[in-house]
Amino acid sequence: MPVNLPLPQAENLKSVAGVELGWAEAGIRKANRKDVLVVRVAEGSTVAGVFTQNRFCAAPVQVCREHLAAGAGIRAIVVNTGNANAGTGEPGLAAARATCDALAKALAIQSKQVLPFSTGVILEQLPVDRLTAALPTAIANARADNWLAAAESIMTTDTQPKAASRTVQIDGKTVTLSGISKGAGMIRPNMATMLGFIATDAAVAQPVLQKLVSHAADHSFNSITIDGDTSTNDSFVLIASGKAGVTIDRAEGAAFEALRDAVTALAQELAQAIVRDGEGATKLMTIRVEGGKNVAECRQIAYAVAHSPLVKTAFYASDPNLGRILAAIGYAGVNDLDVDRVNLWLDDVWVARDGGRNPEYREEDGQRVMKQAEITVRIALGRGDAEATVWTCDLSHDYVSINADYRS
Amino acid sequence: MPVNLPLPQAENLKSVAGVELGWAEAGIRKANRKDVLVVRVAEGSTVAGVFTQNRFCAAPVQVCREHLAAGAGIRAIVVNTGNANAGTGEPGLAAARATCDALAKALAIQSKQVLPFSTGVILEQLPVDRLTAALPTAIANARADNWLAAAESIMTTDTQPKAASRTVQIDGKTVTLSGISKGAGMIRPNMATMLGFIATDAAVAQPVLQKLVSHAADHSFNSITIDGDTSTNDSFVLIASGKAGVTIDRAEGAAFEALRDAVTALAQELAQAIVRDGEGATKLMTIRVEGGKNVAECRQIAYAVAHSPLVKTAFYASDPNLGRILAAIGYAGVNDLDVDRVNLWLDDVWVARDGGRNPEYREEDGQRVMKQAEITVRIALGRGDAEATVWTCDLSHDYVSINADYRS
Repeated sequence: MPVNLPLPQAENLKSVAGVELGWAEAGIRKANRKDVLVVRVAEGSTVAGVFTQNRFCAAPVQVCREHLAAGAGIRAIVVNTGNANAGTGEPGLAAARATCDALAKALAIQSKQVLPFSTGVILEQLPVDRLTAALPTAIANARADNWLAAAESIMTTDTQPKAASRTVQIDGKTVTLSGISKGAGMIRPNMATMLGFIATDAAVAQPVLQKLVSHAADHSFNSITIDGDTSTNDSFVLIASGKAGVTIDRAEGAAFEALRDAVTALAQELAQAIVRDGEGATKLMTIRVEGGKNVAECRQIAYAVAHSPLVKTAFYASDPNLGRILAAIGYAGVNDLDVDRVNLWLDDVWVARDGGRNPEYREEDGQRVMKQAEITVRIALGRGDAEATVWTCDLSHDYVSINADYRS
Repeated sequence: MPVNLPLPQAENLKSVAGVELGWAEAGIRKANRKDVLVVRVAEGSTVAGVFTQNRFCAAPVQVCREHLAAGAGIRAIVVNTGNANAGTGEPGLAAARATCDALAKALAIQSKQVLPFSTGVILEQLPVDRLTAALPTAIANARADNWLAAAESIMTTDTQPKAASRTVQIDGKTVTLSGISKGAGMIRPNMATMLGFIATDAAVAQPVLQKLVSHAADHSFNSITIDGDTSTNDSFVLIASGKAGVTIDRAEGAAFEALRDAVTALAQELAQAIVRDGEGATKLMTIRVEGGKNVAECRQIAYAVAHSPLVKTAFYASDPNLGRILAAIGYAGVNDLDVDRVNLWLDDVWVARDGGRNPEYREEDGQRVMKQAEITVRIALGRGDAEATVWTCDLSHDYVSINADYRS
């Protein structure tokens, strides 16, 4: 059961002019399952992305980087689940290119105008024939109002599809944004087996779009973690179709900021959906570190807390075991940290004061907060003005079951 | 059930002349349980230690550092379980000092000749009255042949006591070493809720003993990890009583090397016992990284693999999910790693070759190794001559159960 994550409703997901989505059942790994998504993008659109930092980056990620660098104008995206096409060497690269070739041929565009994405088991060759055989079906059913089915078609261990929309007024016109994401385990910064796609009908110049996607990723997909593992395939892509009659060609000013904030808020919603649906998750934890010397050390401490199996199991047990949180702060690697200035809150309950237990803290107050499904851990370092926020979930029996059983 | 860890037998544990151990039931946290250990050390002994790097170091660790720095000659050690006396501020420091004062008074020595150790729940005040009330009993039953009972008296979530002995011939004389350790969760480098004590009857000059204890710790207690958490209280102490008629006053030469190797081997046995008894452990994994540019990057990659929840759950499931291991190598943070030179073996089975799946690898061979209780993961980076080894265990349902339930 995801944590406070309502099922998206098709009628709430808005079409983005210039973007059509179609799915197919290719039988990549299992039969009778949506496992291929094709997204068609109108001519003249701009597309930008950020990708995994894992040294073992998957074949499709390499091809995405090449095709974006080619600058020919992206016209289509193809995603498959069931196989990540990672650790597959030259044959894997050839399979990713063959996929692009097949889709390009069917759409009468160039291969370098296609971006490929894969997610699933790694170290096994992609069954490229099954994938390309399914492309005509996906193309045939591509529609602008297909966002919910698109979200379903990229799911792996996700228990439910993740999709959301919003609109924002810019220069007196309505700009629409819709997005989908997938991912449930192996999630941490730098985009672990996480895929996110957002489209808007604003027109955005390529360098501005790249700034937008980086900013949104840093404040969303790169600020979540389930288990600290980073995948070989993570990608977040932003599409601007330009059909809304609003043009943003500078990375400053009110119009830019309005779109940036809308993209970031939508990316946060989609990224938090991944944590809410984290493998085995029963709680959403927001780890907010403030009063740091710089953002990097705030993130370092937030991640140490978010990754600690002892902290995560304590939250699973609704146990206000504050010592485990303090211990994680202590070993985060900020070597000149003065622990006597550290303060800690669970939501509104002040639990640790000046490095030790707050004398006024009562266990029952901590217990009350820990029973909630959503909890904010706020850590004040008392050494500066920087801050950072990371979202994570608890570590439960179901996490072990899911990951001990994933391939069988 | 620990992994291949026979119960230590009292008759196999050798007395070390000049060292006597006694226990008591103080009721620190639970009644009718050995929870206090006193170790008396003969006059003229040398004692050296290494301690947690956690910024929240516990009160007893602070007092240990002070008392070792005072150079008055350590004459006694006192250990309690049930309460870590960490995150307890000034009252905690006062409690640790009061414990030393009480033991010093009973033994007619100085307070600064006592080293205090605590392990258990953090952020709660140590019930120092109950602890000091139990000291006379512990002193009264102190004996040289009490190593097994001593090991029992420092257990927390350990499922069995950890103790071992060995002898080594130096300069034609027999030198004896005995040691005990405790710890089962929250273990990683820099000594997480891990206590280790080794005594030898060699005479060792203080600076030489410090080098010995650091070397042994780096190759044992600082090379193990259960869950990546580092505690506030970890300590490893080496006692040299000088009763064997062998004196080592230089950190070089055959006698030094013989003792160093014996201490290190014993420390490795005691450290591996902690991993074998890791919370919920069903498998002992040896992660060996070779061919690195330097030891630091080898350790960095070994720990990334050892800490990955996805790798650990795959081992629990006996699933040769090699992709998870490669992914962990890829995100370990060695930014110029050429993944095309990475090779990987599970015991003798060559599974990944030049960054991809070894074409000759058969899944049934990987499966055969994964079913074993002890598995070596060997990773060759192909970029230098450095190497490092880390020991860890798998992540099971029982780990979650134990840690979700620890305080109740």
